[in-house]
Amino acid sequence: MSAALRHHGGNLAAARAVYGDGAWIDLSTGITPLPWPVPPDLDWDWHGLPQPAALAALEAAAAGHFGVNPAFVCALPGSEIGLRLLGMLLGGRALHRVPGYRTHGAMFATSTPLASETPPPPVDAALILANPNNPCGTLQPRPALDAQLREREVAGGWLIVDEAFVDAHPDASIAGQVTPENRLIVFRSFGKFFGLAGLRLGFVIAPPPIIAAYRRALGDWPIGAATLEIATRAYRDRRWIAASRIALADHAARLDALLRRHDLAPMGACPLFRLVEVEDAAPCFDRLARAHILTRPFDYTPHWLRFGLPADEAAFDRLDRALAHG
Amino acid sequence: MSAALRHHGGNLAAARAVYGDGAWIDLSTGITPLPWPVPPDLDWDWHGLPQPAALAALEAAAAGHFGVNPAFVCALPGSEIGLRLLGMLLGGRALHRVPGYRTHGAMFATSTPLASETPPPPVDAALILANPNNPCGTLQPRPALDAQLREREVAGGWLIVDEAFVDAHPDASIAGQVTPENRLIVFRSFGKFFGLAGLRLGFVIAPPPIIAAYRRALGDWPIGAATLEIATRAYRDRRWIAASRIALADHAARLDALLRRHDLAPMGACPLFRLVEVEDAAPCFDRLARAHILTRPFDYTPHWLRFGLPADEAAFDRLDRALAHG
Repeated sequence: MSAALRHHGGNLAAARAVYGDGAWIDLSTGITPLPWPVPPDLDWDWHGLPQPAALAALEAAAAGHFGVNPAFVCALPGSEIGLRLLGMLLGGRALHRVPGYRTHGAMFATSTPLASETPPPPVDAALILANPNNPCGTLQPRPALDAQLREREVAGGWLIVDEAFVDAHPDASIAGQVTPENRLIVFRSFGKFFGLAGLRLGFVIAPPPIIAAYRRALGDWPIGAATLEIATRAYRDRRWIAASRIALADHAARLDALLRRHDLAPMGACPLFRLVEVEDAAPCFDRLARAHILTRPFDYTPHWLRFGLPADEAAFDRLDRALAHG
Repeated sequence: MSAALRHHGGNLAAARAVYGDGAWIDLSTGITPLPWPVPPDLDWDWHGLPQPAALAALEAAAAGHFGVNPAFVCALPGSEIGLRLLGMLLGGRALHRVPGYRTHGAMFATSTPLASETPPPPVDAALILANPNNPCGTLQPRPALDAQLREREVAGGWLIVDEAFVDAHPDASIAGQVTPENRLIVFRSFGKFFGLAGLRLGFVIAPPPIIAAYRRALGDWPIGAATLEIATRAYRDRRWIAASRIALADHAARLDALLRRHDLAPMGACPLFRLVEVEDAAPCFDRLARAHILTRPFDYTPHWLRFGLPADEAAFDRLDRALAHG
């Protein structure tokens, strides 16, 4: 199994290089298989510089979806870049939860991994976590997050919550607690829930001095014309958002039933992906990859395999058959 | 005249707010009016994460156009972001040439403006300049740049050259001098010469440790799917690039003749824009804006007005008439 495939999901080219070309099903990411349908008549201008008013409209639409004050929201050309800039903008040191998203450990020059059940030491470090967590899919309830925020503030640190996968669980978001006073920074991602990761769009929700620091680092035109146009419409599409939450829950329930039929016990509350624990993920990954189904193994543990949601009947069937012919 | 219009070019929305809606001609930027024609059948995938191989292909195509080793090239989601990150990545202090591009003064936490004819002091600061310069359009010949690079190296500093507008003058680029040893960093922009600023794409050309620092700051997916697909094709289109250089020179000569007919003396060697010096730019800007032609005044001097290239016969005619009916 190629190292590239255990580093990040979504590297179909690396998979093709090992297992051959064909009609691959990519279950290696947590990107929804039910993307927001970009209207065919939607248009934008690639010639000129994006207009400041269009950026403000996107941030207002996103803030409406997040349930936060737009003054605390800054659009990013991908939440990945936003995460990576934070350490430089905020300074200091960090603690990051493991297992978790790989980039969390690379955000600050000095960052200490902290296992999920270990209470953070009372030091003035930032605490970085994802909710729901990735790859486990564990969802922390709001009271638990609120308690961690208070604890961080007493210690003189920041709580940094990566909500890349929270859109399916709007009540779990702590973004509404971002205020000028609270030491809370939240990241959101557009690509996963809306299924348009190729647009590269994320957001940081933070107190105004941190928003100002991001704007200084990014300049006046951080987001391209197509992304501005498409994402603004998508965030305003409340009906699609509500319908997608229901559809994702249905797909996840169906994936759970399928995995269980093959004696794989799905973990996690996030409908965008499921983690299974096995003695050795490599043969299972390999069997699926030979059937041109890409899943997500992890270089830090041989026991895990993460499954994204199959898109449709045909994809569920192919996964079912590939798992059966072991 | 609104402050927004004297801060950056391209803010048509601010112009419309003051002078009304209509068929505006935007001459307020240095973006070519002859954009690379995006093939209507060109397609890309907005669903998945952009592939690392597609990013490598873009960087290789761009390196071919720049005439540099691809190992020294990192794609940026806009050269604006690249410029703004450099101070954080490189540390230290800077000197920036004035008049120049506004952002150059904001790249480093400590930066001292330096008038164009003043020799830089022999201190270990980075020296930031644009070639050709913006807004004056002055083009420095290669020997002058080489001398400045040697001087910076003796002083223990870096030479940072913003080549956002150099594509029309390929022989003037110093990018080929970037090596692991030289203390030289070059920025390039896609949007201006290719006329697709809404795609948000730029490049930094630098020694490998600086490229590595950019990659750490940007992560694995800095560039969106459409930008990867379109810009890779555009950089490979040698025939269009050569034809565009000729067409831009023609348009610029025609703009020069037009301006001179109205007793405006165009300055600068860059065919993407011309600067004129007048006693007071405000009435000229205002007269043109009332005719829905947006030019670029400058908040730091009332004497300058910059003109981008009119796109076609009709635009040249409208500019001609608007300048005549003063």
